[in-house]
Amino acid sequence: MFSGAQVSLYPMSGNFAGIIFDAIKALDPYRDALRIETDDISTLLVGPPDVLLAAMRDLFVFAARSGEHCVLSAAVSRGCPGEPDDPICGVNLGDGIKASLAERIDAALTAVATTPVTDQPSAAQFSLYVMGTGDHMDEIYGCIDFLKRSGTFDKAKNFSTKLRGDAGAIFATLQQAFVNFGPPEGHVTLDVTVSANSPTRA
Amino acid sequence: MFSGAQVSLYPMSGNFAGIIFDAIKALDPYRDALRIETDDISTLLVGPPDVLLAAMRDLFVFAARSGEHCVLSAAVSRGCPGEPDDPICGVNLGDGIKASLAERIDAALTAVATTPVTDQPSAAQFSLYVMGTGDHMDEIYGCIDFLKRSGTFDKAKNFSTKLRGDAGAIFATLQQAFVNFGPPEGHVTLDVTVSANSPTRA
Repeated sequence: MFSGAQVSLYPMSGNFAGIIFDAIKALDPYRDALRIETDDISTLLVGPPDVLLAAMRDLFVFAARSGEHCVLSAAVSRGCPGEPDDPICGVNLGDGIKASLAERIDAALTAVATTPVTDQPSAAQFSLYVMGTGDHMDEIYGCIDFLKRSGTFDKAKNFSTKLRGDAGAIFATLQQAFVNFGPPEGHVTLDVTVSANSPTRA
Repeated sequence: MFSGAQVSLYPMSGNFAGIIFDAIKALDPYRDALRIETDDISTLLVGPPDVLLAAMRDLFVFAARSGEHCVLSAAVSRGCPGEPDDPICGVNLGDGIKASLAERIDAALTAVATTPVTDQPSAAQFSLYVMGTGDHMDEIYGCIDFLKRSGTFDKAKNFSTKLRGDAGAIFATLQQAFVNFGPPEGHVTLDVTVSANSPTRA
């Protein structure tokens, strides 16, 4: 199954280019596991879902350590029927097909609870989209149940859910939402925004 | 049908807050037509699809006039089964149900061709998500056909399509993609990024 993300990093600083070029080094440990391509709008990451979200976390935390207000925005996708399969993505989510929604929620909660702390406070919001099925809202409501018990839940918003907490737990929550909800081989996407050092906290 | 957007504006500048607070004034003419709520991550706009995209255009163009590198990012949604109907959204896309894909593509092309110019060069990329149907890729491929003939098409990317051109034409293209593809009363979303004044042009 093809999985990947189009990722953009926005440092609200006159030194935005320097912060981005520095932070990109945080992706170096992932260069064997991910295909990485950059243009003027975003950086494409192609690879296994767990590696994708870990790489995004490290990129974001590195940039946020600058102390500037930084936002990471990403379109994350798996199972898009328009993308050819790619061995680098290597993961088979098919085993999950046997798990009930309740079992998947439990697995997701355990994964978030055991994720390492980054000491980078963050806020986030995201939308989960499940395509190609008539019952997509059941999976979305299941995911919302997981989110409310994840420890990162902040509030429900129109079209999205807002999270708050350590960047490690937030990216772990996003990863679990991405892999555990929607059909295991289905077309699932996330629209993700993660923010640090905002002068406004509402 | 409920329609709206969560919109964020990212000026890559030490004066990001000033640029955002100035640009928000560009929404004043829309305050009767839209419900507008802001927190530390995004501004919610709720209202008719055509007004939504026009308001986002004016917000973005105002910020870009600062000369700083500015990005607008938005999650745009219509017909979400989890949102209660709201009279302010007022639009009925049901008439479009009778139009064939070819007719809808023609209507979208005419709308983009006749949109006013803003004189703000921009780049954009977006993804169209159609939920709750088994044939969502047919509508997406129809939309891609429209995009390729829209005058704003730049290139296909993984998970998304990249546009380039005047901000007026770009937001008109996004609006037409939003209203003309997917079931008229169905759940359709866009994940949108629009950029101006980038020092990198790839």
